[in-house]
Amino acid sequence: MSDKKKTTIVLFSGDYDKAMAAYIIANGAAAYDHEVTIFHTFWGLNAIRKDEPITLKKGFLEKMFSKMMPRGADKMGLSKMNFAGMGPQMIKHVIKKHNAMTLPQLIEMAQEQEIKLVACTMTMDLLGLQEKELLDNIEYAGVAAYLGDAEEGNVNLFI
Amino acid sequence: MSDKKKTTIVLFSGDYDKAMAAYIIANGAAAYDHEVTIFHTFWGLNAIRKDEPITLKKGFLEKMFSKMMPRGADKMGLSKMNFAGMGPQMIKHVIKKHNAMTLPQLIEMAQEQEIKLVACTMTMDLLGLQEKELLDNIEYAGVAAYLGDAEEGNVNLFI
Amino acid sequence: MSDKKKTTIVLFSGDYDKAMAAYIIANGAAAYDHEVTIFHTFWGLNAIRKDEPITLKKGFLEKMFSKMMPRGADKMGLSKMNFAGMGPQMIKHVIKKHNAMTLPQLIEMAQEQEIKLVACTMTMDLLGLQEKELLDNIEYAGVAAYLGDAEEGNVNLFI
Repeated sequence: MSDKKKTTIVLFSGDYDKAMAAYIIANGAAAYDHEVTIFHTFWGLNAIRKDEPITLKKGFLEKMFSKMMPRGADKMGLSKMNFAGMGPQMIKHVIKKHNAMTLPQLIEMAQEQEIKLVACTMTMDLLGLQEKELLDNIEYAGVAAYLGDAEEGNVNLFI
Repeated sequence: MSDKKKTTIVLFSGDYDKAMAAYIIANGAAAYDHEVTIFHTFWGLNAIRKDEPITLKKGFLEKMFSKMMPRGADKMGLSKMNFAGMGPQMIKHVIKKHNAMTLPQLIEMAQEQEIKLVACTMTMDLLGLQEKELLDNIEYAGVAAYLGDAEEGNVNLFI
Repeated sequence: MSDKKKTTIVLFSGDYDKAMAAYIIANGAAAYDHEVTIFHTFWGLNAIRKDEPITLKKGFLEKMFSKMMPRGADKMGLSKMNFAGMGPQMIKHVIKKHNAMTLPQLIEMAQEQEIKLVACTMTMDLLGLQEKELLDNIEYAGVAAYLGDAEEGNVNLFI
């Protein structure tokens, strides 16, 4: 076990703003030399979906989930004031104006900082998501691996 | 004080999927020999409501809350893509298909694993919920008891 | 570094009920002699907005955010059963009936107990909020300051 501080975040939410908060905290912690893990489960898996359509053999319900869920970070909605998609546009405008980072940029930075991005295999099964649909360099694990990281953690958050 | 690791979860949310996540983490932690507490507050109390109707003397507002809130884990909606109840049906179908556990089964397992299920008495008062309406073997406590558990905790989550 | 236990809460949510939960836990922890910090980010900043209208020079998007977001704790909606504002009224009625504290009272108590209330400067920029619009005695900081508090924390929550 290393002596580094640890930050472990469960990203459950599929909202653009909540995922932004998760990735901002994660990138900050990595910059302060924490060992950081983001465990993506349920709707949080959408943040690490590839944005191109991928044709895969799926059952009916799995196909419906795939179609209804946003394909990738850039297509996610806001938790508040989504206004049928107008809210995310507003946020993206002000991000640009203030030279802040968009969610896809924050995710790219996380990968550069070697933050461990994990996809929860159990909820991938439930929602019918397959490895080919997710970004490269993702780890695949279950709740046991999450707990292994979290129980040594200094900062544990569920977002 | 025991030497066991501790996991303490505040379940605030009344969403089926969020409660599932809470109980999956809790059951996992108990399997890894953590001492686990789930503190149900606000809408999270609905997860431990009995599913049969119970006639009790209540004030008007308390009656309204009782009627409007889901009676038990099985009747809770999703945080995303609820689609007027179609979402939970889809989730329940895929749970069955993948031999995963439903929320009522996860709660039963938590009780078998001796996870401490606590109901927040202050929010029970606010929402007009009475002990007779909740499952058996629930403990009743306030924020002080929660903090006593959480401050020694390894994994503390608010869900 | 003091020997006191530490509770650090990220208040991301702009919902009345979630902010209540955050402030109830915070006030409880302060009463048990924890050093407590609430870090307000995104919609959680609305909890510490002044309730009077304040005229400031702002860009178009910033003006829209200002207008659309609730001005102060008392005007926030519920995360569940908001019913176009009827839900908050119901909650406020039962709070009064049970002699519990409203959100503005909980915030006042937090200030009396010297809980450190922090506003996230990065999201203030994004949402176009300025210091003059927020309550007095608020500290202004970024994610680095949050992590400095959280990494020594006993109870860390994201609400």
